[in-house]
Amino acid sequence: MKPFDLDNLLAQMRQALELNQLDDAIHTLESLRTPDQADLLAELDEEDQIALVTRLGPAASADILEELEDEEAADLMEALPTETAIRIVEEMADDEAADVLGDIEPAIARSILAGMEDSEDIHPLMLHAEDSAGGLMTSEILVLRRRTTAGEALEAVRRWQPDSQPVYDLFVVDSQGRLSGVVNLHQLVVSPADRPVGDIMEGDVIAVLTGTDQEECARLMSRYDLLALPVVDCEHRLLGVITIDDVMEVLEDEATEDIQRMGGALPLDQPYLSSRVLEVARKRVGWLMLLFITESLTGTVLRHFEDQLQTVVALAFFVPLLIGTGGNAGSQTTSTIIRALAVGDIDTREAARALWHELRVGLLLGLGMGVFAFVRALTWHTTPGLAATVSMAIFTIVVWANGLGAILPLLASKLRIDPTVVSGPVMSTLVDATGLFIYFTIARMALGI
Amino acid sequence: MKPFDLDNLLAQMRQALELNQLDDAIHTLESLRTPDQADLLAELDEEDQIALVTRLGPAASADILEELEDEEAADLMEALPTETAIRIVEEMADDEAADVLGDIEPAIARSILAGMEDSEDIHPLMLHAEDSAGGLMTSEILVLRRRTTAGEALEAVRRWQPDSQPVYDLFVVDSQGRLSGVVNLHQLVVSPADRPVGDIMEGDVIAVLTGTDQEECARLMSRYDLLALPVVDCEHRLLGVITIDDVMEVLEDEATEDIQRMGGALPLDQPYLSSRVLEVARKRVGWLMLLFITESLTGTVLRHFEDQLQTVVALAFFVPLLIGTGGNAGSQTTSTIIRALAVGDIDTREAARALWHELRVGLLLGLGMGVFAFVRALTWHTTPGLAATVSMAIFTIVVWANGLGAILPLLASKLRIDPTVVSGPVMSTLVDATGLFIYFTIARMALGI
Repeated sequence: MKPFDLDNLLAQMRQALELNQLDDAIHTLESLRTPDQADLLAELDEEDQIALVTRLGPAASADILEELEDEEAADLMEALPTETAIRIVEEMADDEAADVLGDIEPAIARSILAGMEDSEDIHPLMLHAEDSAGGLMTSEILVLRRRTTAGEALEAVRRWQPDSQPVYDLFVVDSQGRLSGVVNLHQLVVSPADRPVGDIMEGDVIAVLTGTDQEECARLMSRYDLLALPVVDCEHRLLGVITIDDVMEVLEDEATEDIQRMGGALPLDQPYLSSRVLEVARKRVGWLMLLFITESLTGTVLRHFEDQLQTVVALAFFVPLLIGTGGNAGSQTTSTIIRALAVGDIDTREAARALWHELRVGLLLGLGMGVFAFVRALTWHTTPGLAATVSMAIFTIVVWANGLGAILPLLASKLRIDPTVVSGPVMSTLVDATGLFIYFTIARMALGI
Repeated sequence: MKPFDLDNLLAQMRQALELNQLDDAIHTLESLRTPDQADLLAELDEEDQIALVTRLGPAASADILEELEDEEAADLMEALPTETAIRIVEEMADDEAADVLGDIEPAIARSILAGMEDSEDIHPLMLHAEDSAGGLMTSEILVLRRRTTAGEALEAVRRWQPDSQPVYDLFVVDSQGRLSGVVNLHQLVVSPADRPVGDIMEGDVIAVLTGTDQEECARLMSRYDLLALPVVDCEHRLLGVITIDDVMEVLEDEATEDIQRMGGALPLDQPYLSSRVLEVARKRVGWLMLLFITESLTGTVLRHFEDQLQTVVALAFFVPLLIGTGGNAGSQTTSTIIRALAVGDIDTREAARALWHELRVGLLLGLGMGVFAFVRALTWHTTPGLAATVSMAIFTIVVWANGLGAILPLLASKLRIDPTVVSGPVMSTLVDATGLFIYFTIARMALGI
């Protein structure tokens, strides 16, 4: 296997296109795997994209469009001649087609749907939210009945030509279309040809409703090692199937979003280098300003203790250190709790247990850091009184930050807010202001100022 | 499908075990899916675990042990009578067996291996690092030759009874055992029975070496929608296969590790509530102390500017605000870059482009925040001189933080350090000290103090 070298291929491709050697460019593109073709195409100008897609033919173009980021696929689709777009959409897996059509100008989407020979599978899919089970599923499925034999089922598999990847799990429904079992291709192959599917199938199938969140779908598929997850309506009628490749993308996207949110930025929905600078700045400036306003609380606290600061300027030397440590202890807790919530180690009903757990961790850490800070402050030629103040303050702040770091994500989760939103920056800002208050209150009492 | 209610089932189970009704407990356990059985078993005392596992029989116990966290499985395995342990390991998928045996006391592992009828598949797997392709792969594979027909291949699938899940991708090797192609079960089913596998197979197979990192394996499988990834030696001989279920776990674990590391804590390898308080504290205290020492640099910087602070105490009011904003801008950048590196949007060779991108974002954000801070400071009854100082400082700090936030993870990645290590807390600490220096230097010049 040759590793995929985007830069090099892109240079080749651009050269061929500049010299108007479309055949060479097509040849380069066709020698690649679909995800690589998509990456390459995404880097080209719209004009070149249209030329290549038109020349490649609808089936190959459909595969590439399925791999492009949603926005890129929508932009390209809008730019294509309607007739070409129609032929391509007809070749796409219906869940991907519904996603793209949902992202483009409604008028263009309508004329594409109107021009298709067979658009009735796509219409209902467009009604579901993109991040729900209904939005992820494909309705191109092969369903079996209990009385079908293994041999007949294999025959049906042979005759079936879906636009999407082959599905290895086949679902069994009753006369009302209600999901009653699942059988995989391996079981069909190893069973005697005359054995009815009803005798082979597993009856207790894990299924989700169309409105189920995509993260929950991913969690179920990962936990129960499923390659396909059936989607049903409230009467348990089978509507479609989510396949593992859709869910791998969800897992990656969700991890990306979590990490970007923890860093205090709205998630980008484009590959990093192709995102515009203004767009990136726009996604970040809101949080930055909001946090600035919240953080200015620290100024109010400091001003409140102006006299103490005036008297002992050395108090100021420890300000960043104390609030930094509080912020660090808090984010350690928050990130642990967020992840425990995400993988299902704890749920909000166990909030009290989790809080108690973190408070005990906080007591231990606070004790350790308090002793450590006392020694550190003394070796820094600080007066014993100030060193004791700093030590007591750090103990209190660490316990407090651990408690706050546990409560915030649990509370967010209870209120159905994504817990990553309150992590990182929000958490530090809160700990900063309250930590200063704790510090100066202890200083006032301990130093008698 | 009934949702899995751990608390309720656990209560039932404990009651049955207390009353010595082992049959009832076994009945409850057998009514569940394997991952749920594992969760339930993990919550019980070791004594009860042993009683249940002994009664369940080796095949069912092997399935459960495969689902347990590695440490939990190792603890249970060590506690079991050797004879029982041997029967269970014989029923486990060989990659999982190798993981468990690698985690238990070497003496016990040796006596288990010595007692097994068929341990030669496991031995070589134990030589690979657990987080490499060699550690993830199973060597229980069905290999085909080019001349095998589709019908013969299906017959081989029927006769084959692996301990692990069925594999839908079958690999084709030449007479030297070198990987030459891949064919999936669906293709075998739809092809005429007399068609040789060599005519059906896809020849250009994506494969990894035994030493390939598990994250890279996960990335490849996710990018190219693979259900199985072959592992080869340096002469391209097929050694084993990584299956999608192993990789889903890797993706989850890596996301967990990234998020915990970004929060400045070493990843826990146990479910949160079952981790001991002392253990959690131990995993965090190192970072906390290290960051404390680094952060005490801020004290050195402040002490350096003691005269300025003495003259204008109001300078101190803005300290937390300025370093907080710098930290926020920096972590926004770091989290974006880390994720772009992880999903392959950028690589280290594009470091300069990424840095330039971030610097431009920083200029925009710095300008916006500078104006905003100036207005905010004035409305806070600050003198115009101090407001201008704060405004200039914030502009400089934001640009600097964006640059640093881009360089640090890129540098770490270049040095083959996990970039999440330098994010969050490390990043903030660096920005804090340097930010203060910038602030007071500007203040000294602007206010002439």
